[in-house]
Amino acid sequence: MRIARFAHNDVPQYAFIQKDSADGKEYLVPLDGYPLGGRPVKPTGDRIPLDSDGVRLLAPIIPSKVYGLAKNYQAHAAYMHEQGQAPVAQAPAEMVVFMKPSTSVIGPDDPIVMPACSRDMNYEPEVAVVMGRIAKNVPVEEAMKYVLGFTCVNDVTLRDLQQSDPMWTRAKGFDTSCPLGPWIETEFAWQAAHISFSLNGEEVPEASGTTANLVHSIPEQIAFISSFATLLPGDVIMTGTPHASGQLKPGDEAVVKVDGIGELRNVVVQG
Amino acid sequence: MRIARFAHNDVPQYAFIQKDSADGKEYLVPLDGYPLGGRPVKPTGDRIPLDSDGVRLLAPIIPSKVYGLAKNYQAHAAYMHEQGQAPVAQAPAEMVVFMKPSTSVIGPDDPIVMPACSRDMNYEPEVAVVMGRIAKNVPVEEAMKYVLGFTCVNDVTLRDLQQSDPMWTRAKGFDTSCPLGPWIETEFAWQAAHISFSLNGEEVPEASGTTANLVHSIPEQIAFISSFATLLPGDVIMTGTPHASGQLKPGDEAVVKVDGIGELRNVVVQG
Repeated sequence: MRIARFAHNDVPQYAFIQKDSADGKEYLVPLDGYPLGGRPVKPTGDRIPLDSDGVRLLAPIIPSKVYGLAKNYQAHAAYMHEQGQAPVAQAPAEMVVFMKPSTSVIGPDDPIVMPACSRDMNYEPEVAVVMGRIAKNVPVEEAMKYVLGFTCVNDVTLRDLQQSDPMWTRAKGFDTSCPLGPWIETEFAWQAAHISFSLNGEEVPEASGTTANLVHSIPEQIAFISSFATLLPGDVIMTGTPHASGQLKPGDEAVVKVDGIGELRNVVVQG
Repeated sequence: MRIARFAHNDVPQYAFIQKDSADGKEYLVPLDGYPLGGRPVKPTGDRIPLDSDGVRLLAPIIPSKVYGLAKNYQAHAAYMHEQGQAPVAQAPAEMVVFMKPSTSVIGPDDPIVMPACSRDMNYEPEVAVVMGRIAKNVPVEEAMKYVLGFTCVNDVTLRDLQQSDPMWTRAKGFDTSCPLGPWIETEFAWQAAHISFSLNGEEVPEASGTTANLVHSIPEQIAFISSFATLLPGDVIMTGTPHASGQLKPGDEAVVKVDGIGELRNVVVQG
């Protein structure tokens, strides 16, 4: 099932997305209620074509916090070492986790605003986990029960500030650094999903990979983070970027694609 | 003016705190409305003695995010160097900023839960700024107009995890790591306020200091953070700890005192 948040004539609302087998088109089926509140939601009875005028998708969730995994694919750890950004080519044995604030989140087609303080802004295509239940001290084998679904994320990073900004608070937490979307997919084969990235309409082959190569698995990430912090419904975990990243410049179109979820498109503007 | 958040028979509410000149006692004057919503609030007409049964103060705000300044007093930078925690004794010339999530916030008298993963949990007494208005790209000279008031914070830190956890996500962001309170003081001489700390009833002289010695001033902090991230009403900035910190162990009573604000008391329990 796909859960989307959308605005119709600027009123935000949640919806399921349904494909009509007769006309082959996708429709928003608006919901009464909030799908993360723990109470049942039901369709209002309306149906709005996804491509209607005045309809736009929003970030599917505004998380209270976003956690991210650093160098969680061996290929990305080796790439960062080649780029002179990491002293060793080996992915860290222990999970290294950073945070983005809620104010960094934007939705599909929202602009990524490149801060004037950076000359080297990078894309990082990733699978994002959206929590569905309050999670604290969750064991690995129970972790997936706490997940609502998955979406695409672009973990946008100011590469040139990562050295001078050791906590990455500015480098990864600036406004618009967390494009999320296009929707939350609740049925997703997270064990081996293909991730890819396109820049200005051309796929960047060295940026792609599969979640089968995650160093620390999604259940391990949930167990680790929930061992020290409470994960709230709607909180997001960015699971890591699979391989190479690369520069984004004003005017660029960035598309993160995760097979089984969909495509997240954003355009870069100068801040 | 003092703005408090309190629970009376477990119902949370905002109040002003007023001292009655006749009986010398402090009273909660509950408010209709939310003092950070930008709309006027008015007293309900009730008055509850602060020391009533069934009344307890809560964290005066649940911020969307908490920023903190690392080594923002020269005496603390030198102390961290002496402790073998920093390669140089000099405070960084550029601001170094980290984050705590909303889930780390607790209120007065709430327990600080020491995580089982740490053997060296430290206190850090500080002045906390509470934002009153949405702030983005605010110039230094305008910064104080965006502040609602000030409170005390204990920036509790797992010192032994700071090296292995380079982003301090676990070391400074674990549940209960951000005791805030006892209230928000809107009239506060922030330019030169004395900060002190007591452990089990005895003041620790080497932990004290004054905001007159901040390396980066409060207006500079607001300007810097708002240059890359939007500060929301209620967001908190921890301005730095003045000098030494020290260990907290289960059973300890930790009291942060800021002259002109008040005292924030918490007891440590083993997690």
